[in-house]
Amino acid sequence: MRAITINTARLEKTIHELGQIGANEQGGLDRTAFTPAELTARDWLKEKLAELGLDVRVDEAANIWAIRRGGINELPVIAFGSHVDTVPNGGKYDGALGVLLALEVMRVLEEQGITTRHPLGLVSFSAEEPNPFGLSTFGSRTAAGKLTRRDLDGVRNDSGKLLVDALRQAGGDPDRYGQARRKPEEFAAFLEVHIEQGKRLLDRGIPVGVVTAITGIYREEVTVAGVPNHAGTTLMHDRTDALMGAAEAMLALERVCREHQADETVGTVGKIANYPNAANIIPGKVKFHMEIRGKTRADIQETTAEWEKHAARICSGRGVRIERQLLLDQHPAAMDPLVIETCILQAEKLGYAHYSLGSMAGHDAAHMASLTRSGMLFVPSLDGISHCPEEESRIEDIEKAGNVLLHAILALDERLDC
Amino acid sequence: MRAITINTARLEKTIHELGQIGANEQGGLDRTAFTPAELTARDWLKEKLAELGLDVRVDEAANIWAIRRGGINELPVIAFGSHVDTVPNGGKYDGALGVLLALEVMRVLEEQGITTRHPLGLVSFSAEEPNPFGLSTFGSRTAAGKLTRRDLDGVRNDSGKLLVDALRQAGGDPDRYGQARRKPEEFAAFLEVHIEQGKRLLDRGIPVGVVTAITGIYREEVTVAGVPNHAGTTLMHDRTDALMGAAEAMLALERVCREHQADETVGTVGKIANYPNAANIIPGKVKFHMEIRGKTRADIQETTAEWEKHAARICSGRGVRIERQLLLDQHPAAMDPLVIETCILQAEKLGYAHYSLGSMAGHDAAHMASLTRSGMLFVPSLDGISHCPEEESRIEDIEKAGNVLLHAILALDERLDC
Repeated sequence: MRAITINTARLEKTIHELGQIGANEQGGLDRTAFTPAELTARDWLKEKLAELGLDVRVDEAANIWAIRRGGINELPVIAFGSHVDTVPNGGKYDGALGVLLALEVMRVLEEQGITTRHPLGLVSFSAEEPNPFGLSTFGSRTAAGKLTRRDLDGVRNDSGKLLVDALRQAGGDPDRYGQARRKPEEFAAFLEVHIEQGKRLLDRGIPVGVVTAITGIYREEVTVAGVPNHAGTTLMHDRTDALMGAAEAMLALERVCREHQADETVGTVGKIANYPNAANIIPGKVKFHMEIRGKTRADIQETTAEWEKHAARICSGRGVRIERQLLLDQHPAAMDPLVIETCILQAEKLGYAHYSLGSMAGHDAAHMASLTRSGMLFVPSLDGISHCPEEESRIEDIEKAGNVLLHAILALDERLDC
Repeated sequence: MRAITINTARLEKTIHELGQIGANEQGGLDRTAFTPAELTARDWLKEKLAELGLDVRVDEAANIWAIRRGGINELPVIAFGSHVDTVPNGGKYDGALGVLLALEVMRVLEEQGITTRHPLGLVSFSAEEPNPFGLSTFGSRTAAGKLTRRDLDGVRNDSGKLLVDALRQAGGDPDRYGQARRKPEEFAAFLEVHIEQGKRLLDRGIPVGVVTAITGIYREEVTVAGVPNHAGTTLMHDRTDALMGAAEAMLALERVCREHQADETVGTVGKIANYPNAANIIPGKVKFHMEIRGKTRADIQETTAEWEKHAARICSGRGVRIERQLLLDQHPAAMDPLVIETCILQAEKLGYAHYSLGSMAGHDAAHMASLTRSGMLFVPSLDGISHCPEEESRIEDIEKAGNVLLHAILALDERLDC
């Protein structure tokens, strides 16, 4: 018997359709969470889900859920999905692809008249990407109980709009926010398809990536304080230059990450602010965001500890002060062995080459992993790039991920007893 | 015979009066060029000069000139003065002190009924400080013919106001701008009193500084171009991080300046911009202002050449590209030996300890030096600080500089035949 497969032509059409919503002149997508374009994308999705006869509802965190009844409705839900918001000037695959493959799976099952034992749940999480409200993986963190109503208090975007108001416009309900928290017993498993955003699959020429763990992300705001002074009248040996101290501290981060034994331990300074930032004034203060990612907590902790030694040396050598404020400490999330095994088995049955790898980007699945057995499938990213108009994946790779998703869901439905 | 002296009590009063104009809540002065507060200061000054019966006029670059007739009016002018604009949240001595001492000298001469052979000219130059129009030492550069009408085209401040409009409001005339250029034959000499803005006089306990040369200022905008990428999925060895390249390039500047034989060779990165400046994106581009100051052109050129070697190494080692754009190449200006000698002699006659030193800050006198014999007197800065509300000089030091100025002008008047 030939295995059922997704309808690739139909899928391509939905990728194209959703890829029009928020399209900008540079060829990218501006569909940041809770913007008018993103609300349009949500409406588009809800309409498609409703057309399929699914039970569509928007929860208090504005996550979109679409439930397909199973044969045994006492069983918990097998959920799958991703997000439809993008970064500013992003691409049409990051997030959207996981939602559109989930939609395609629902369509195939409907077409084929297949009733699973478990109810199936498509989910599109709110505000996964970094956004002007400063809360990424917003929807999945809420579902996992990691964000509470208090975290929303007074949160505004750059133009002063309150997050709670944006949430209401998207169909959320800040007044009953706690009800968006899901319980472990509601789920049997969670699966997310996403673009890799790296080059490991591409470099190996392998179409299907099976994710073993999602990186931990540790972020601090580091403040280097020196003494602002006149750039002419202050001789070199009289200076306590905050920017030079920061430069050394940043290079130290690079060094400790390069020297760390695990290849997947990476450190980045992506954001920096210099004060007063005038050509003729020696900088008195620099603030930068120091981010460290690693596959295990130990990897991150070792790196931080090593950097601290350098920081102490810089402080005593230069007379600068370094203050640190924790911004984020998202633990690495191991994917579930049974889900991993199921994905691998289905890829093999379908005759697709597969490769197991860690995810170096954070994903909603990292938070769902604290509620239920979770897994992820990666689709190769051309050139390894993402978060830009050039973000691209080949349809023949996408198709394979879709088929593995479809069959992994069916296999999990058979295999899982709860 | 007891030498005539300035009226210190009267001087203190004018320092206090002018120090109220533009005073802010932090105790500093907001009297940036061409702001309403600075225009008020100009009006205050013009009124005081007119009260003295001087011939006050505002030239096309909005420089304020006040001429006191001499006995031999065919002789060129002995000019002296400084500027009344401040940096944002600056102090009440930088610039203003030189103008107020010039005013006090005019008052004493008037009171004493002294007629010099040469006409005397008090000048308050426009926009000496870095300002929102991006043109510092604006008035003196215009007088010296280093800025022309074309340099004003399209120049706007941050709120979009045209420099030519601001200039008109201050009494300037952009349509006849070329007439603000002065000719060498108009001047016999120029003298400027200014606060030191460093600690060399203070450290030595010496009240009178005689400036031997004004530092050259060389400024480039350096652009480091790398490849922006995802901070998680891009492993350390796959990165071309513009900010890390910039950090190395900045530290290289510090190193070459520290290692340069001349103590007064200094290098500063005061201004930096990082793109796209997001916590989770590896920086793709960094722009920074690299400033080098030195007492001689050779010092600056050696430093630049040494830094270039480091920059080339950074480019080849990291795969970043470095592009450089010249912003400013202000040559060091030697002060005139006769003026220096005259100042030293008068200080000695008055019984004041004096010290000869280079100026590490740029000043209007650097540009006047291309027109006429020029000199500067420095007043010690408490703690060596300036450009802030805490900027302060002792009245007993100020008084001494005022008396040296007064007697140096009288001595130059006798000594100079043209």
